[in-house]
Amino acid sequence: MAFPRPKPTTMETLAMERANPPFNVRKLSIAMHGSEKALVLKEKFMAEIARHPAFKLSDIHDLSKDELRERTMEKFASMVYFVTNESLETFSLRMQLIGIADPSFWTRFGVAYGLFLGALRSGATPNQLSYWIDKGVLGLNGVIGCFAMTELAHGSNVAGLETTATFDRESDTFVIHTPHLGATKWWIGGAASTATHAAVFAQLIVDGKKHGVKTFVTQLRDTKTFQLLSGVTIGDIGKKMGRDGIDNGYIQFTYVRVPRAHMLMKHTQVSRDGVVTEPPLAQLTYGALLGGRTSMVADSSNSAKKALTVAVRYAAVRRQFSSGKNEVETQLLDYPIHQRRLMPLVAQAVAMGFTGLRLQVMYEQMTQALDTMEPNDPNLNDILDKLKETHATSAGLKAFCTWACLDTIDKCRQSCGGHGYSAYSNFPLMYADFAVQCTWEGDNTILSLQAGRSLVGAWGGAIKGKKLAPGVAYLNDSSILTAKSDSSLSLSDIQRAWQCVAANVIKKAAEEYVSHLKAGRSKDQAMEICSQSRFIAAKVHTVGYIFRLFREAVDEMDDSEETKLLKTVARLYGLWQIEEQQGYFLKYGYFTAQQIDKVQDNVDKLCAEVRGVAIPLVDSFALSDHIINSPLGKWDGSVYESYFAQVQAANPAPKEHPYFNRLIKPLLERQNEDMEDPDEAMGLEDELKEMEEERREGK
Amino acid sequence: MAFPRPKPTTMETLAMERANPPFNVRKLSIAMHGSEKALVLKEKFMAEIARHPAFKLSDIHDLSKDELRERTMEKFASMVYFVTNESLETFSLRMQLIGIADPSFWTRFGVAYGLFLGALRSGATPNQLSYWIDKGVLGLNGVIGCFAMTELAHGSNVAGLETTATFDRESDTFVIHTPHLGATKWWIGGAASTATHAAVFAQLIVDGKKHGVKTFVTQLRDTKTFQLLSGVTIGDIGKKMGRDGIDNGYIQFTYVRVPRAHMLMKHTQVSRDGVVTEPPLAQLTYGALLGGRTSMVADSSNSAKKALTVAVRYAAVRRQFSSGKNEVETQLLDYPIHQRRLMPLVAQAVAMGFTGLRLQVMYEQMTQALDTMEPNDPNLNDILDKLKETHATSAGLKAFCTWACLDTIDKCRQSCGGHGYSAYSNFPLMYADFAVQCTWEGDNTILSLQAGRSLVGAWGGAIKGKKLAPGVAYLNDSSILTAKSDSSLSLSDIQRAWQCVAANVIKKAAEEYVSHLKAGRSKDQAMEICSQSRFIAAKVHTVGYIFRLFREAVDEMDDSEETKLLKTVARLYGLWQIEEQQGYFLKYGYFTAQQIDKVQDNVDKLCAEVRGVAIPLVDSFALSDHIINSPLGKWDGSVYESYFAQVQAANPAPKEHPYFNRLIKPLLERQNEDMEDPDEAMGLEDELKEMEEERREGK
Repeated sequence: MAFPRPKPTTMETLAMERANPPFNVRKLSIAMHGSEKALVLKEKFMAEIARHPAFKLSDIHDLSKDELRERTMEKFASMVYFVTNESLETFSLRMQLIGIADPSFWTRFGVAYGLFLGALRSGATPNQLSYWIDKGVLGLNGVIGCFAMTELAHGSNVAGLETTATFDRESDTFVIHTPHLGATKWWIGGAASTATHAAVFAQLIVDGKKHGVKTFVTQLRDTKTFQLLSGVTIGDIGKKMGRDGIDNGYIQFTYVRVPRAHMLMKHTQVSRDGVVTEPPLAQLTYGALLGGRTSMVADSSNSAKKALTVAVRYAAVRRQFSSGKNEVETQLLDYPIHQRRLMPLVAQAVAMGFTGLRLQVMYEQMTQALDTMEPNDPNLNDILDKLKETHATSAGLKAFCTWACLDTIDKCRQSCGGHGYSAYSNFPLMYADFAVQCTWEGDNTILSLQAGRSLVGAWGGAIKGKKLAPGVAYLNDSSILTAKSDSSLSLSDIQRAWQCVAANVIKKAAEEYVSHLKAGRSKDQAMEICSQSRFIAAKVHTVGYIFRLFREAVDEMDDSEETKLLKTVARLYGLWQIEEQQGYFLKYGYFTAQQIDKVQDNVDKLCAEVRGVAIPLVDSFALSDHIINSPLGKWDGSVYESYFAQVQAANPAPKEHPYFNRLIKPLLERQNEDMEDPDEAMGLEDELKEMEEERREGK
Repeated sequence: MAFPRPKPTTMETLAMERANPPFNVRKLSIAMHGSEKALVLKEKFMAEIARHPAFKLSDIHDLSKDELRERTMEKFASMVYFVTNESLETFSLRMQLIGIADPSFWTRFGVAYGLFLGALRSGATPNQLSYWIDKGVLGLNGVIGCFAMTELAHGSNVAGLETTATFDRESDTFVIHTPHLGATKWWIGGAASTATHAAVFAQLIVDGKKHGVKTFVTQLRDTKTFQLLSGVTIGDIGKKMGRDGIDNGYIQFTYVRVPRAHMLMKHTQVSRDGVVTEPPLAQLTYGALLGGRTSMVADSSNSAKKALTVAVRYAAVRRQFSSGKNEVETQLLDYPIHQRRLMPLVAQAVAMGFTGLRLQVMYEQMTQALDTMEPNDPNLNDILDKLKETHATSAGLKAFCTWACLDTIDKCRQSCGGHGYSAYSNFPLMYADFAVQCTWEGDNTILSLQAGRSLVGAWGGAIKGKKLAPGVAYLNDSSILTAKSDSSLSLSDIQRAWQCVAANVIKKAAEEYVSHLKAGRSKDQAMEICSQSRFIAAKVHTVGYIFRLFREAVDEMDDSEETKLLKTVARLYGLWQIEEQQGYFLKYGYFTAQQIDKVQDNVDKLCAEVRGVAIPLVDSFALSDHIINSPLGKWDGSVYESYFAQVQAANPAPKEHPYFNRLIKPLLERQNEDMEDPDEAMGLEDELKEMEEERREGK
């Protein structure tokens, strides 16, 4: 550019922000990633996709839905190599990273590998599983699966699904059928143009009797010609808020027959004679759900970090208003209110990150415990209790972390002012892609209520003197209900604050529940009536849980500058959330009004403190320019140059105006007049003189 | 459809919801629209656009950016007739309605009519104005204007704009120039492909001296050929989060000359000799900003009502989970938590609607007072005080109403579960279109701080005994600081609650400000440091203000069933907001902890009460199926049928799979195997027998 640049340039500003950080950025980054290996692998994956043409991101905002889908399929094909040649651990890290870069792809791939294959793993007998593996489900050579659960009129309520699978004894087949419009399979990722087979959830009917929802592997298309099989009707469900790279479709079955052996029979079996054998125990599906939720907590942290990397870097280079004439304008990040807008969100993203890491470890331990568990294990009840508790807590974590992330993305967008509204800032796509996390795999509100229901149950256990699982063990100590702050606002003071308040709101929900039971309501009715209190219980417990996990992680670290910073960040998270929900802390008397003022004051100061290292801190999130895909957040600070270049590249001037002749010209020429000499026409000189005279006369 | 429908159908359900409402829906609707005339006009406008091909909305989600823009220009052309043939009042109502249907169009049109013409009206001398009117700015026959204020590196800070307008005495022209990349005019609506002229905001420089930012009407394109004039560089800034029907562009000027008379000279003048005459008083721009903010409050209410109409109707017809076997599933709207999700938002939308109506009246009175005001008017100070107060309050209203609406849209989306994520639900577009309201015409956070600054000032006046303007008059009564609830939770109790708490948080902000002043900070510094407290002051004051205006409106109504309902809605709004911000009410002792429990209990009950009439209530919002453009919110309840039909119409099957041969076939055929007989291959029978035996043995 021939244009002169104002001083200091945005690039110089960002370099100054990076000079002499009081901690080692790499060490901090390793801590946030759980291990050096995880960080190094992430950097490797980032480098690989940055150079892979299918993973080009800079032009993604201007692709049509059809172009996006085709490119997503290119990525899909490019991943098959890794899935068959990498360890599960490595491949999971790869997918986690790619999920941040391109959530559309992550889902489209996850439908085949996570959901379809997951359905087989959890529902197929060993022989069935090896049959489908022989067919090619692992390498996609022969079978590409999709997961046909949701129906047009039924989402959350799986037991209420209306697709039927009726056993036909004569031909030893099940007849899969969509009885009416509302039972149409809907939202099925991969159905519209990728899948050959589907794991269809349908009501098993034998001899006119319903046996509940089971899973039936049903072929949709001929694998050679890709033509739909007879009786299978599939359509594209079209444009979505985001994730348009996924080919979600609807499926209607009209008396489609599948061999009996295609019902997954690990749990319920149907014999050749139509005898239905139900499993002796209700299915242990906790584990499977837990895995999904764990990854959503991690994804919430990562997606929030991505948005924050952009917003914080931009706030460092963006200058508005100077404090005096001729002075350099102030960096947005130096305004206390802008620190207030972003620093607590940074702290929250870091807190969710550590929560995700610890949850992952807990999940792996539990999976192992479940895999090796024997029916007569003396610790069986303990393990199951812990599993149930973690399962319930993970429901709350999924809900409040995905909400927190979505909120973070939009707050980051707004903090960039007008430019956040440009598609090229990448905030619009981040928001649109992420938004689905609040409603899928369990609507957040419903999940919160599940978590709240479990907390009400835990409270019931606590008053009966039962030793509770670790996540809710604080309910065992009834003195926590009347705890008071020691005024230190230290990490342990904050943790007690959350436990005190959580115990009180859980108690309130439990007492409401019991009072409705006593008034003669059924358990379900009583639970419904105390929904709002259950919701509050889940909200407060969940924040306290995140804080506790974050604090535990930091407490385990060595005494270093990085740990010191993380303790500051943890205090900011805990105190800011207290401020956000201050009503409960006042209501239950943990803090006095004066102490709450002190909390606000401390949050102000902590925001300023974290702002001092904001750039190295977001650098430690280790997200490449390619991944964040936003000129506003460019690592080197070349914000406006990059933004301008991207806008120009994405919007070349058309050779001809697309509608000037048809629409604009007729308007302009409706009563065309010749240009006149403006000064003369306006009599400007005379008028100005007149006005000047009037002014002198004091009019 | 040949499919059977479950009973009761969604249509029957909605009809039942509408049977025997306890109030007259039409009367309620008239009250919400301010007058019967306004409602009738709205219905007329809705009918007109529903039948106009350019205003087709059902296919809008699948149009490309270029198609959207062309269609938006068609609407633009179709409106010119009305703008020149309708009264301003009627046309304003028309635009308000069309703004709800199509915000993109509203903005594109508003750039030419509201902003460009507004700049002329407020900045041109009478002769200049009539010159431009003769040129055709009213009928667009000759001039289509755009408003070139914002620059790439400067948004909020208008005084910091860097485009220069240097007076060249010799040629009696100004030289308009973009000195560097950051000074590029950016976001200019209409610049990319519509405008012939621009109102350019630039630093006036005469003889090397800067005189601040003035407005220069600059021609951009030849009106015959539409070619850019020499020195004018324009590009398209491309994809945005929403409102893609607007052709926002960037403009760079390279030494472009405009006649001196094209500087708007109502306030500052530059004579033929280059003498700059500054206006004797700072410009009274309050009035202009107030108009924009008033319309944004109304738009927030209307857009929220649009989203809520969809969410509430869908929640009435959507059924999930039955309380017993074979029972009809429960309507979502009958779940207490779902009432909690939607009913308070309904109350808020209604509250904002009445606030908008009253604000409009206040705005018109003020405009009139200003227009007729003489410099020696004895009431001058009163009028100016009232104007300043309303101006500051309107800043807070703009911020908190647009935030509330954006939040409502996304909560409505989430309340519809997965289907809210479909583009055809219309929530994605509503959100994307509305989101810009939080950052344009003043970033919400910045506006909140401005409101807070004014409240700090008002507090200073109050303690000096100054009689304050009506909006902040409650600060004149110092006993409000220590007021206590009478436990009635009546409308007047609620209003006192808000006044008490607002007075306390304003006092806190003011005291912080003063303490920083005393510590030696400058006024600006002191204001910055107490930003968070100023923000809180603005937030609490604004909600209290909305509540008060809503209550006043209801108090003025006759004693009827409609009024009774609105009082219930007002109580729900006030109490729900108290619950949301309960910390302040506890902190300042207006409510005790027990009373706060009672508030929660009352909100539960009010939600259930409003739910009882939820469908007739949203019907009274009077938004046609065409306007809401969402099958989920269809008036007749034909939700799934309409949704399915729209999805099918928008997504016809392609004749050929776009990438099967290139991408999918190679995957499937990497190691192709023949289909085998599944039962045999799997040895299913043997395996099942084995499992059954194991089970019997108790393994």
